[in-house]
Amino acid sequence: MPLLGLLPRRAWAALLSQLLRPPCASCTGAVRCQSQVAEAVLTSQLKAHQEKPNFIIKIPKGTRDLSPQHMVVREKILDLVISCFKRHGAKGMDTPAFELKETLTEKYGEDSGLMYDLKDQGGELLSLRYDLTVPFARYLAMNKVKKMKRYHVGKVWRRESPSIVQGRYREFCQCDFDIAGQFDPMIPDAECLKIICEILSGLQLGDFFIKVNDRRIVDGMFAACGVPESKFRAICSSIDKLDKMAWKDVRHEMVAKKGLAPEVADRIGDYVQCHGGVSLVEQMFQDPRLSQNKQALEGLEDLKLLFEYLTLFGIAEKISFDLSLARGLDYYTGVIYEAVLLQTPTQAGEEPLNVGSVAAGGRYDGLVGMFDPKGHKVPCVGLSIGVERIFYIVEQRMKTKGEKVRTTETQVFVATPQKNFLQERLKLITELWDAGIKAEMLYKNNPKLLTQLHYCESTGIPLVVIIGEQELKEGIIKIRSVASREEVAIKRENLVAEIQKRLSES
Amino acid sequence: MPLLGLLPRRAWAALLSQLLRPPCASCTGAVRCQSQVAEAVLTSQLKAHQEKPNFIIKIPKGTRDLSPQHMVVREKILDLVISCFKRHGAKGMDTPAFELKETLTEKYGEDSGLMYDLKDQGGELLSLRYDLTVPFARYLAMNKVKKMKRYHVGKVWRRESPSIVQGRYREFCQCDFDIAGQFDPMIPDAECLKIICEILSGLQLGDFFIKVNDRRIVDGMFAACGVPESKFRAICSSIDKLDKMAWKDVRHEMVAKKGLAPEVADRIGDYVQCHGGVSLVEQMFQDPRLSQNKQALEGLEDLKLLFEYLTLFGIAEKISFDLSLARGLDYYTGVIYEAVLLQTPTQAGEEPLNVGSVAAGGRYDGLVGMFDPKGHKVPCVGLSIGVERIFYIVEQRMKTKGEKVRTTETQVFVATPQKNFLQERLKLITELWDAGIKAEMLYKNNPKLLTQLHYCESTGIPLVVIIGEQELKEGIIKIRSVASREEVAIKRENLVAEIQKRLSES
Repeated sequence: MPLLGLLPRRAWAALLSQLLRPPCASCTGAVRCQSQVAEAVLTSQLKAHQEKPNFIIKIPKGTRDLSPQHMVVREKILDLVISCFKRHGAKGMDTPAFELKETLTEKYGEDSGLMYDLKDQGGELLSLRYDLTVPFARYLAMNKVKKMKRYHVGKVWRRESPSIVQGRYREFCQCDFDIAGQFDPMIPDAECLKIICEILSGLQLGDFFIKVNDRRIVDGMFAACGVPESKFRAICSSIDKLDKMAWKDVRHEMVAKKGLAPEVADRIGDYVQCHGGVSLVEQMFQDPRLSQNKQALEGLEDLKLLFEYLTLFGIAEKISFDLSLARGLDYYTGVIYEAVLLQTPTQAGEEPLNVGSVAAGGRYDGLVGMFDPKGHKVPCVGLSIGVERIFYIVEQRMKTKGEKVRTTETQVFVATPQKNFLQERLKLITELWDAGIKAEMLYKNNPKLLTQLHYCESTGIPLVVIIGEQELKEGIIKIRSVASREEVAIKRENLVAEIQKRLSES
Repeated sequence: MPLLGLLPRRAWAALLSQLLRPPCASCTGAVRCQSQVAEAVLTSQLKAHQEKPNFIIKIPKGTRDLSPQHMVVREKILDLVISCFKRHGAKGMDTPAFELKETLTEKYGEDSGLMYDLKDQGGELLSLRYDLTVPFARYLAMNKVKKMKRYHVGKVWRRESPSIVQGRYREFCQCDFDIAGQFDPMIPDAECLKIICEILSGLQLGDFFIKVNDRRIVDGMFAACGVPESKFRAICSSIDKLDKMAWKDVRHEMVAKKGLAPEVADRIGDYVQCHGGVSLVEQMFQDPRLSQNKQALEGLEDLKLLFEYLTLFGIAEKISFDLSLARGLDYYTGVIYEAVLLQTPTQAGEEPLNVGSVAAGGRYDGLVGMFDPKGHKVPCVGLSIGVERIFYIVEQRMKTKGEKVRTTETQVFVATPQKNFLQERLKLITELWDAGIKAEMLYKNNPKLLTQLHYCESTGIPLVVIIGEQELKEGIIKIRSVASREEVAIKRENLVAEIQKRLSES
């Protein structure tokens, strides 16, 4: 009972007295009403918090606020990602942050325990969405959509041990692109890989490659090596850890924890070390064990076709057929892939980055059918860009280079060198705003000119318009360039036109 | 015990047997461990769901998916709102979807019960954010920020009775702009009203006006009428309902439910019928009761100054001083406001819209101090745009007018009239994508030309590039305008340049 253990004595007493009051009318007597218990616990915990003399204000574990600096970097990256999705004809979409719990259960394999559940407040049982793929499949089934190319950018939540160093949080943004529908083989799959290449090249993150495999090859390999079918998904999740753990440790997990025969594990070990281009696909067609397995052969046929299309897309040299790629999630049924950034040689002062996978996805032909009352399937293939890691990399690089970002877009500042010019400044700034010009002024009746100019310098505002007694009398306005400190006087009525001209030139 | 009442007999039995097993080691014996109870209830409920023969796939009550059609409308509206916020120098920001429960408690007055709590999964007690204002105040206090102008667009969650007809959901988007910091009076407050005017004018939703009042005037009026101080906030929430309920019903609530003396209620009744421009402010200075109240006088002084600035901003005629405006939330301390759309005369076929408030806000000088260990205050004023209602209005209008939106931005379609041209189409579309052109093709080996052209017409793609045997032999490509059906042949190597020229002209 870890929670109650934290309560101070007074709160404990309050909790006990609430629990010992007579059961409510609808209770059976044998069982105390759950909502009463929960309410009592909550009240006591809150009391405990409020009683703390040094109340510390903080945010939930594993989450963070995004400051204006963060937001500027994100906006740039998301713009690039979304414009790539739109270039490929995708429509936007959104789903609620939470789903019925039953919609999400039994979709994520070993990771299901990491879901955030909502408290039962007398309605439905709800959980925060864990990814954007299951809600998409639920949407297709619910609306009987048979064909759709959509993108979805949104937050998802997982109760993982947060690793802030690696930019991993419990709340994070996902950017997904998926193609649903019955089409000729491998054309949409190849497009997904093309999109990953376009995005990673566009972001200029350095060199990268994409590991590709097929769930049918993974399963075929398991069968050929002698893994019992009941252990397929469990062994799959062990294999999935090969990018973070050594083979020896993965082997240990499979044998000691998952009860796999050591010789079976060793046979798998031979395969998972294989990776290469299309020639490896050809080689595997000749493999004595794999070539006996119908599923594996289907997977290999598809990969061969995939490589053909990837060559036409001009990205075949970025792709590596990798038998160690397994992908942890239960719902994949065909091609799977994962993009990995290559470590750039550490530049002077740049911290080494261990970034791992920055994009991933695959084919999931069975998921929509799980939501359809009659089991009607809609084949799907998609990808997810690991934008959080990308944000982290870009932010680290900017830090190393000492790059600063402007967090506002203000173009013009309205200043005065004299007292009692608030009214004139308000009139002036109204003209600018109404003309669509981004403008600011200080919220003071009588600010000093130096303070006003300093504000422009520190926030990167390029232009200042200055009004004072002299200007008012002569019907003019001064425009000052913050960078060059040059000032010119123009007629007041030409202000907006002159500013617009200058902004369009810069 | 409404939840358990829903369980089928078998699930009931399972629940009972779990509850009757011996208490866990850390239980006291007198009290059963809360997590055991909760777990048992959950398991039983899930079982119950899974046992249902006709499993119905649905989304949580009061939520909805946003289809591509919705998203296009939202994107347009949000772009306009955000660009206005940026025009006024605001920085972007984001906070987690959930906060520690204690961060949110005692901030929302009577509405607190509408918060979504997360299930206690052995960590912190968390709730989904209820608005964007309290997280902003928490952010300022936590980071010791004394001055900030920020906007925040994000989802918030409230367990209200959903009214889908009026576009009210349990999950909805808020767009907030706030100015934090100690400044000369009423300058930031006036800018908030200016922003509301710019946004509502920009969206062309028809005529509107903004009701303005001040919490100090509301409280001063209560004191002057004889409301006991302990009832201020409760009576405030009753008054807040005046835009939806008749005075007679609000009066009944105050007297019968909140125990206010009838003669006190009647005195309030005299005031809340008053609304007008700056002349009403002047008039209230002369009011025998209000003019005796220090707080009310301060509020009136500020409103007078506010109207002066609003006149300079050119928006005074949009503002109405309205003594019935109270605003339900606890945290307001000064100026409060609410923008109301005026009902446009019902056009032929247009359904009458009852939209109520589409933007609101006010000054909250005490909220940040509630989070600071030493109680240091940071005065704030802000506004929230009711974008969900605005989305709803715009969608209704489009429906009435039969307007259709394109949900994709594809510019070019790659087609072929012949079989076995998949490879050529893939090469062609790669050229387009790599040049940044938005392009699509059908994912079929051998689609019919008519199907391809029909796809362009139904999705609004303006240009088609056509490749066939003849074109391949001659090194040309045909470009077809979908609207005019005209086709021209161009050299293959000029394709990208020609397309870009046509797109820039259109």
